[in-house]
Amino acid sequence: MSKVRNVGVIGLGAMGLGVARSLLRAGFAVHACDVRQEVLDKFAAEGGVACATPAIMAPSVDVLITLVVNAAQTETVLFGEHGAAAALKPGSVVISSATVAPDFAIALGQRLAAAGILMLDAPVSGGAARAASGEMTMMTSGPAAVYAKIEDILSGMAGKVYRLGDEHGIGAKVKIINQLLAGVHIAASAEAMALGLREGVNPDALYEVITHSAGNSWMFENRVPHILSGDYTPLSAVDIFVKDLGLVLDTARRSKFPLPLSAAAHQMFMMASTAGHGGEDDSAVIKIFPGIDLPTPKQV
Amino acid sequence: MSKVRNVGVIGLGAMGLGVARSLLRAGFAVHACDVRQEVLDKFAAEGGVACATPAIMAPSVDVLITLVVNAAQTETVLFGEHGAAAALKPGSVVISSATVAPDFAIALGQRLAAAGILMLDAPVSGGAARAASGEMTMMTSGPAAVYAKIEDILSGMAGKVYRLGDEHGIGAKVKIINQLLAGVHIAASAEAMALGLREGVNPDALYEVITHSAGNSWMFENRVPHILSGDYTPLSAVDIFVKDLGLVLDTARRSKFPLPLSAAAHQMFMMASTAGHGGEDDSAVIKIFPGIDLPTPKQV
Repeated sequence: MSKVRNVGVIGLGAMGLGVARSLLRAGFAVHACDVRQEVLDKFAAEGGVACATPAIMAPSVDVLITLVVNAAQTETVLFGEHGAAAALKPGSVVISSATVAPDFAIALGQRLAAAGILMLDAPVSGGAARAASGEMTMMTSGPAAVYAKIEDILSGMAGKVYRLGDEHGIGAKVKIINQLLAGVHIAASAEAMALGLREGVNPDALYEVITHSAGNSWMFENRVPHILSGDYTPLSAVDIFVKDLGLVLDTARRSKFPLPLSAAAHQMFMMASTAGHGGEDDSAVIKIFPGIDLPTPKQV
Repeated sequence: MSKVRNVGVIGLGAMGLGVARSLLRAGFAVHACDVRQEVLDKFAAEGGVACATPAIMAPSVDVLITLVVNAAQTETVLFGEHGAAAALKPGSVVISSATVAPDFAIALGQRLAAAGILMLDAPVSGGAARAASGEMTMMTSGPAAVYAKIEDILSGMAGKVYRLGDEHGIGAKVKIINQLLAGVHIAASAEAMALGLREGVNPDALYEVITHSAGNSWMFENRVPHILSGDYTPLSAVDIFVKDLGLVLDTARRSKFPLPLSAAAHQMFMMASTAGHGGEDDSAVIKIFPGIDLPTPKQV
């Protein structure tokens, strides 16, 4: 009989909750941490193990997935006051899935290695729906020995696992380049729809044409419906792209590499954030354009 | 018995030749003009009627499609010394398919109407392959009476005909907004691949990941293979986007509307053009980035 494997998930947000549920369905014992008690209670009711802190969770799991917002939170949940790192068994694996700077991913691998813990640099993509169905994409790099230990877990949480190299940081780089494109495309979608509104083009017709033409992008197709329905409930917020395009620009600046479009898009998200839209859906970047009337929510 | 309809195509370029051949297959008598005699001879050998000038062609056709590069060429083939307009029968239809400024499309409709000729504002999209298979997309606007006269011709040349309104100029606006996105996406694709090369990421792996992630766009998927193979043979040239993003910015400037990403992308294409790459494939915009080694063509 095979032993049930114990897996920890830190962060039950849009992606983390989907991952935790997918791993439950795949037959793992899933331990979870989140700062929001109600989310944690709900997950426990579904069959998960709720843990008060990462440090309390750590001794019970063989593999730990950090699906928090950024590098600072990753730092806290691993090395903070109630962090997991000091309490993990030697030979455990940390799957680091937040979007972070490549240098942070590399340093994190070294710090964990010093404690006898293996790491996979493993940012994720694909949105909440694909995380929930266990079909998200992972952009990973790390030593072959790590993959050997967690193959069953990766296939339980992701539809596609890209292996990009033996060294930490490559997964982080590829994720950051994905975010460069995602951020520029959201801002470009807003710019295009804004020009259409300014010119009196029917926005629904414009969406229909563009999604069937060479101007289409994954983000245009996904985000413009939020603009058309006037619904800026955040699925991913403006401030996420203030952060992620900031990481893109920081990464390039280290080697003095110019990124004109990323810089312009970053400015647009910062304009939107400081104008008061930082917590709205990232499609709210269209609100920086003057002189247009945006579609409003349909009356129920 | 139905009479074979006579259709004229002016401009046998990447799109025009495909349209002319699609109309031949659909059973029309297709008359064609092009400044390149060898292209014209080849089309005649396939069953088309080669015409020396638009003026000579005009009396023989009921419907005329202008698929030239820009507004200036549209002007020349219709109103120039050997232009078609003066020789077209009253009640003929001109399908104006070059990418032009909305104001030009509106004025063109008025000038043709004064000569008793109907017009459809009808830019096209989809690339040479879809033009060749009769499946391109058309972004059209104009009076209902025009559509009634040319339904069979539109369905012979296009897979999808968007009817965007009764007034000329709306087709042109939607095409221009498509070009805004297409141009920004090509420049963003170049910027993303350039950062990847700068950071030592394998470019083939990066392409594979992005095309399966939220950073994907129609243009990324279509153009980045040119960069990966080091083949800048122009399918659509850098200078086309110098022109088209110029039209985008001119259109917006008329109403003092800001377009930060379009402006940045336009600068990138102008840098590429003036550095000597204007006639290369538009993916050659990546050549503006310093400090990277681009993939070179594989030795045969």
